[in-house]
Amino acid sequence: MTMNQKTFLPAPKFSLNDINESILKAEYAIRGTIPNRAEELDIQLLENSKSLPFAKIVYANIGNPQQLDQQPLTFQRQVMSLVQFPDLLKSKDILLAQKIYSKDSIERATKLLNSIGGSVGAYSSSQGVLDIRKNVARFILKRDLHHDPTQDLIDETASNVFLTAGASTAVDHILPLFAKDESCGVLLPIPQYPLYTAAVTLQKSKLLPYYLNESNNWSTDPKQIEQIVIDAIKQNIKPTTLVVINPGNPTGAILTKDSIIDIIDIAAEYGIVIIADEVYQENVYEAFEFHSFKKVLSELRKNYPSKYDNVQLASLHSISKGVNGECGQRGGYMEITGFSNDVKKVLLKVASISICSVVTGQILVDLMVNPPQPGDESYELDQLERSVIHSNLILKSNTLYDVFTRLPGISCQKPQGAMYLFPRLHLSENAINAATELNLKPDEFYCLKLLENTGICTVPGSGFGQYPGTYHLRTTFLPPGIEWINSWEKFHLEFMEKYK
Amino acid sequence: MTMNQKTFLPAPKFSLNDINESILKAEYAIRGTIPNRAEELDIQLLENSKSLPFAKIVYANIGNPQQLDQQPLTFQRQVMSLVQFPDLLKSKDILLAQKIYSKDSIERATKLLNSIGGSVGAYSSSQGVLDIRKNVARFILKRDLHHDPTQDLIDETASNVFLTAGASTAVDHILPLFAKDESCGVLLPIPQYPLYTAAVTLQKSKLLPYYLNESNNWSTDPKQIEQIVIDAIKQNIKPTTLVVINPGNPTGAILTKDSIIDIIDIAAEYGIVIIADEVYQENVYEAFEFHSFKKVLSELRKNYPSKYDNVQLASLHSISKGVNGECGQRGGYMEITGFSNDVKKVLLKVASISICSVVTGQILVDLMVNPPQPGDESYELDQLERSVIHSNLILKSNTLYDVFTRLPGISCQKPQGAMYLFPRLHLSENAINAATELNLKPDEFYCLKLLENTGICTVPGSGFGQYPGTYHLRTTFLPPGIEWINSWEKFHLEFMEKYK
Repeated sequence: MTMNQKTFLPAPKFSLNDINESILKAEYAIRGTIPNRAEELDIQLLENSKSLPFAKIVYANIGNPQQLDQQPLTFQRQVMSLVQFPDLLKSKDILLAQKIYSKDSIERATKLLNSIGGSVGAYSSSQGVLDIRKNVARFILKRDLHHDPTQDLIDETASNVFLTAGASTAVDHILPLFAKDESCGVLLPIPQYPLYTAAVTLQKSKLLPYYLNESNNWSTDPKQIEQIVIDAIKQNIKPTTLVVINPGNPTGAILTKDSIIDIIDIAAEYGIVIIADEVYQENVYEAFEFHSFKKVLSELRKNYPSKYDNVQLASLHSISKGVNGECGQRGGYMEITGFSNDVKKVLLKVASISICSVVTGQILVDLMVNPPQPGDESYELDQLERSVIHSNLILKSNTLYDVFTRLPGISCQKPQGAMYLFPRLHLSENAINAATELNLKPDEFYCLKLLENTGICTVPGSGFGQYPGTYHLRTTFLPPGIEWINSWEKFHLEFMEKYK
Repeated sequence: MTMNQKTFLPAPKFSLNDINESILKAEYAIRGTIPNRAEELDIQLLENSKSLPFAKIVYANIGNPQQLDQQPLTFQRQVMSLVQFPDLLKSKDILLAQKIYSKDSIERATKLLNSIGGSVGAYSSSQGVLDIRKNVARFILKRDLHHDPTQDLIDETASNVFLTAGASTAVDHILPLFAKDESCGVLLPIPQYPLYTAAVTLQKSKLLPYYLNESNNWSTDPKQIEQIVIDAIKQNIKPTTLVVINPGNPTGAILTKDSIIDIIDIAAEYGIVIIADEVYQENVYEAFEFHSFKKVLSELRKNYPSKYDNVQLASLHSISKGVNGECGQRGGYMEITGFSNDVKKVLLKVASISICSVVTGQILVDLMVNPPQPGDESYELDQLERSVIHSNLILKSNTLYDVFTRLPGISCQKPQGAMYLFPRLHLSENAINAATELNLKPDEFYCLKLLENTGICTVPGSGFGQYPGTYHLRTTFLPPGIEWINSWEKFHLEFMEKYK
């Protein structure tokens, strides 16, 4: 060690006062106070499994199916293992003879390795692997057109698809383009997935909340949205961006086609970019129909081009939800439409600063949009696995919903899709006072007590936004079994009795 | 389709004038003009392989080893395929008997699956999987202490490790905390990896460039850094952050221990956060020694605690470089030290907004820091593969360096590490005038001509910053074979002749 001769007075460390204020202000409740407390209790249980009134934490705070025993789809994971270790293909005769791999998984892996240039360890183009973007384009066009698209249309659509590390990255890339500063407004549904409030806060832009109508199954009111736009403009705030989550998170509501048309009209008239978060498009219950914004916009454009050609839409999808549930693998896509070429180039530059999204996540996007087809060896197993997951989700949703409907002091809109219930808590004055004494929000108080008594980790409605004076919580219905639901029921009745 | 009755005048699309200015200004040359032109030419070759004076593009613009035929490490990929498809473990007897997998890869995969809770498809904690962070801590402590650390020290270090999707994400998370706005200054080496200029521009903070000394092997001059700090403070700019890239990108220079001490002194005296980008720490040539900032800071703290306890350091590492080269898999870590608990919590919140980094990338971090050991079945093959990659890199570096040394009109400092050469172009007035006529920077002109004549894609020095009036380019030495080097040599001589 060189002797250090210089003498100086050491400067202090940075404190919170020195930190970027908008980062300080940004909140993300899904991994906020209650989940953080849950992690502490989890460690306590590891050290002493008898130290708490429950044996384990039930993580219902986040839509993380594979943490909660949902099995990945076999075909997808066969392909993923092959692309990670292409040497396996040298032993394909043994692997096929021993029925360790299906024939179509080997074919798909071979094809994908070719598309990505041979290795998942190489950076891809910043927009994502072209062949995969073409498959995404085919999926979107088939979903919306119900017939096979032309190659030209596929190529054009693929040029507007960006592969991303899930919807979070897509929002990170596109929202700051138009949410420049405090002069720009972003319309967000309340309640909403808190990624959006966090992103707007980080940009120092103006939040323009529009409230979903709880008494009408959390429906969206375009008239209210237009009024907010008009009021913002009067206050010299330019509404640049409108976020829609469909199916809704945390509400589970699905937008009607008429509402979508009305929202697009507002975007067309006032020049507002629509961000349509459609990551739960596969999580739709039978009686309901999902209409993509892209499909509705395409129909409007076809019928009234001069009115709708300028509408700028970014649609998001993800491998984390649906029957895939591949959250930890980080994959998704963003499709843009209606943007000028100049703006598209800027978006590509933004993507290039982080070089590319994880290539294995891109491959899972391919597998999501292009599953085994009739005649493929994996087809039947794949269909079976999908239908088991799907029915399981519906069963779980209904079971939890029924309990909330039965219990006093709680009410719940029947979800139409997604992975959550967002029940309303009708808390007594006693409960509200008890919360205030502990310097907690009333719904936070309920969630904390629920956690500390049962191990069930949920997120207070205040983390998503809610109509002033109302209290909610968001819970996934994903945890396996019904024991946790029974313990929640017991806790709830005791809580209501204690704070009546 | 509902008839849409409302009449309105459609608003125009957004143009570049409407876009966030700091995003417009941010530049990332590694995927900028020249690489974009290369992608166009690549498509042209696909359509007509005879349409250009070369048969393929040689991507020397980016350190992307596996795009350029570097093979992944077998042990690592065996483990990766097993964690993707744990059903393989049911057939482990066959797989072992057929020598398709090694015993230790199966053991490691089993252990890792246990650490992550069973599935790579589940979100991990936002800071990263705890067991993997502990292995990172062991790696750091062994690297720096040269003896086995205590469990307490491992636990404490692990609590300061954040697993990230590569160094880019780490910078995205930490730099904006301290680069708040135009009142904050960020010291950056020039030339530098353009991720940093882009990040500072996005934050609207003040770039405080310090020039590396080309004539002395691109060494760093702490006196110059201190002068810049003093000058900035006089102009009411608070220097909050100092970036060091060691081994250097694009220069390949390695910092001496004395320089590191002097830099830490400046950070200690003026209260500046150090971001030490150490992603090339494994890419070090034999005659040189890599000293981590963490090691040097720990030694200083031990000897003079009162002077150095407040120094705040963030060190970055990545799976993309070294002998791993797993760029597309997006993994890395950031170790922080000296930060207050409050600030650490904010950093954790920032990480939580994007939920977690890709879990397979986290697993590759584990495999990077914890390779097979003597006695493990994979040990010998793994060592062999590493040494082949390492010697190949040195051979390629020397070959290209020798050519640059021999050619007229080009000079090059001998690299000490990393994956690049950053030769200086001594361009004639004729060449400079020809560039100006095309509205190109002189080094951009050279790189464009090189690309269009040989297919070799490099990045102009202007993309990294350079001393005014000097011209450079960055090239990796990774492409296989020497044919591309021969064609570069031929081009260069012709270019020099044409513009003499």
